[in-house]
Amino acid sequence: MTARPANAHQARLLRLLRDGGPNSRAQLGDQVDLSRSKLAVEVDRLLETGLVVADGLAASRGGRRSHNIRLAPELRFLGVDIGATSVDVAVTNAELEVLGHVNQPMDVREGPVAVFEQVLAMAAKLKASGLAEGFDGAGIGVPGPVRFPEGVPVAPPIMPGWDGFPVREALSQDLGCPVMVDNDVNLMAMGEQHAGVARSVHDFLCIKIGTGIGCGIVVGGEVYRGTTGSAGDIGHIQVEPDGRPCACGNRGCLEAHFSGAALARDAEEAARSGRSPELAALIEAEGFEGRLSAADVATAAAAGDAVALELIREGGNRTGQVIAGLVSFFNPGLVVIGGGVTGLGHTLLAAIRTQVYRQSLPLATGNLPIVLGELGPTAGVIGAARLISDHLFSPA
Amino acid sequence: MTARPANAHQARLLRLLRDGGPNSRAQLGDQVDLSRSKLAVEVDRLLETGLVVADGLAASRGGRRSHNIRLAPELRFLGVDIGATSVDVAVTNAELEVLGHVNQPMDVREGPVAVFEQVLAMAAKLKASGLAEGFDGAGIGVPGPVRFPEGVPVAPPIMPGWDGFPVREALSQDLGCPVMVDNDVNLMAMGEQHAGVARSVHDFLCIKIGTGIGCGIVVGGEVYRGTTGSAGDIGHIQVEPDGRPCACGNRGCLEAHFSGAALARDAEEAARSGRSPELAALIEAEGFEGRLSAADVATAAAAGDAVALELIREGGNRTGQVIAGLVSFFNPGLVVIGGGVTGLGHTLLAAIRTQVYRQSLPLATGNLPIVLGELGPTAGVIGAARLISDHLFSPA
Repeated sequence: MTARPANAHQARLLRLLRDGGPNSRAQLGDQVDLSRSKLAVEVDRLLETGLVVADGLAASRGGRRSHNIRLAPELRFLGVDIGATSVDVAVTNAELEVLGHVNQPMDVREGPVAVFEQVLAMAAKLKASGLAEGFDGAGIGVPGPVRFPEGVPVAPPIMPGWDGFPVREALSQDLGCPVMVDNDVNLMAMGEQHAGVARSVHDFLCIKIGTGIGCGIVVGGEVYRGTTGSAGDIGHIQVEPDGRPCACGNRGCLEAHFSGAALARDAEEAARSGRSPELAALIEAEGFEGRLSAADVATAAAAGDAVALELIREGGNRTGQVIAGLVSFFNPGLVVIGGGVTGLGHTLLAAIRTQVYRQSLPLATGNLPIVLGELGPTAGVIGAARLISDHLFSPA
Repeated sequence: MTARPANAHQARLLRLLRDGGPNSRAQLGDQVDLSRSKLAVEVDRLLETGLVVADGLAASRGGRRSHNIRLAPELRFLGVDIGATSVDVAVTNAELEVLGHVNQPMDVREGPVAVFEQVLAMAAKLKASGLAEGFDGAGIGVPGPVRFPEGVPVAPPIMPGWDGFPVREALSQDLGCPVMVDNDVNLMAMGEQHAGVARSVHDFLCIKIGTGIGCGIVVGGEVYRGTTGSAGDIGHIQVEPDGRPCACGNRGCLEAHFSGAALARDAEEAARSGRSPELAALIEAEGFEGRLSAADVATAAAAGDAVALELIREGGNRTGQVIAGLVSFFNPGLVVIGGGVTGLGHTLLAAIRTQVYRQSLPLATGNLPIVLGELGPTAGVIGAARLISDHLFSPA
């Protein structure tokens, strides 16, 4: 795909077709502020670019039947969501429906060259399975702050070797298509907004609790990235003066007290000290691979292990304390909780809700749903496809 | 003024003339995306409404000289900034220049009827002095959350009797002109953005430390109000688990530990217990009216009183702790500190800066000025005039 919309009207039409699927010219005309003749001109130009194709006659609304149009069915986007310990790669059509999705374990600390070799192999596999002949664009999420205009990670605490690596430029050459790069948490927010629990919400927060903790901020339907692209970096908000030392050099950061990594450490400590029989049993079980995970804590909690339950509750309290402050400050319409740790489920959610509803003012919490994300690991790849489609469906 | 711009182009032209003052048609043409002939049509229509008038010939740019236009010089806006203990009323021209400004002590707890009687008397006084024949619009700031579309205060903790009072409707009848109502902190942010320290900044926070504490949030040049209008309500973020009881019913809120009201209480306690000789001397001085204020603490600190200095430093630390979290979350381009307590000056600012620069990540603080507001008590009234002008200079 080399064509881009020539003006804002064409861009608007492309996004309507992306978000709403095939539609009749008549109904598109109702949705955009264009006269019938001007709409016809813009649609004809889009048909010429090949981005849009005719799709038969629409159902009658009385009078002459209108023609349906849709985005070209052969358009393909690649969505890549790089986490700290695994990577998701998916291919979507232009309506951002996932046609194929693969997940592999991966260590982000191996650096960009090794990680992208793996990503390209995964993309090639998706192609080989017949889902795509090539890609018209790719969106990439990385687990750290990104200088957004250039698509370059900046001083990412859990990604040594990535600082300043030209992800956008390098991948764009390797894949032969336009690439956009963003923080993984922003992509999760965009995914839940496009196809998940935040569909009709304009101002919301999306908290991702994985190896680290971050927050996607959506204002007026758009991701807010802040002045230098680090907005939402809530993992290093202090929750305990003189608390635990954190990788960032400070003490008492939220991430040092609760995150996938902190939870694994606490769980292992509880197992080895004998305080938690369930966690100890997991470590001693056959096939144990040397590290406890959030999923193990969830398993132990489900079996009634008091220490595991307490770890989840305490983490929820601390996270809730931070979210309560953000709710007072930002007055969102929805808070979405996602990421690997959501396997901890309703014990975690209950602790978070209690803190927020107790500490924030009633005016801000009166009608504030706090919910788990709906899409799980697909949120990030759909968000990545959405990111690149927003770029391509903008005037060149 | 009954006329309103008929379309977005006219609105844009009015705002350019408001923000930049008189200008030539040629230079306005450079700033808006309109052909010469379309620009001429829109300018002629604005001249017909009387909102805009001709203002002589512009300086030559080579070729035929262009005509200057400007906003009608007789347009008048009323800006009203209601605080907890005093009220500011000012009249501005359409370029938001303050032509007259009066301040009077007032107690917001006397309720809206008494307060607006006083405000109307102050407005009448400004009129009587020949500054205005009438008002073309008025902006009103109140020290609490506002349901913005309706212009109605909602459950304001320090404003008993105001909950649900139809400020916009009532004042619009009394003044005979359109009225818009907002939180006082949002108006301070708009004032500093229009004419103060935040002039060219698109994403910034404006912290007002007065009787209470609040935060104005500007995103992409526009005030962000949140889903229910309570965004920026940071006074009740918890800074001390099991800390002091707060008027809101919780414990350990920022406002309970540091604000004009908390500072006055702490200062009196220090004076009466004999820990602070300077503050004790102020209480015992002739003419003392029964309450110490932030200004008294500033006086004592300037005289080297250790307790006064410690009160300011501790308050700055707590405020800085909250701001550090907001900076990590929001990644602003600027933090402005304003409100009555800014009389505490650089001791306060230094304590806030230390906390923020220590606790927030370098990527967010690398190029983050934290400064005092430039406009003092004029910020609110200019912001109020800006609020109503934004409304009037929008398509009807």
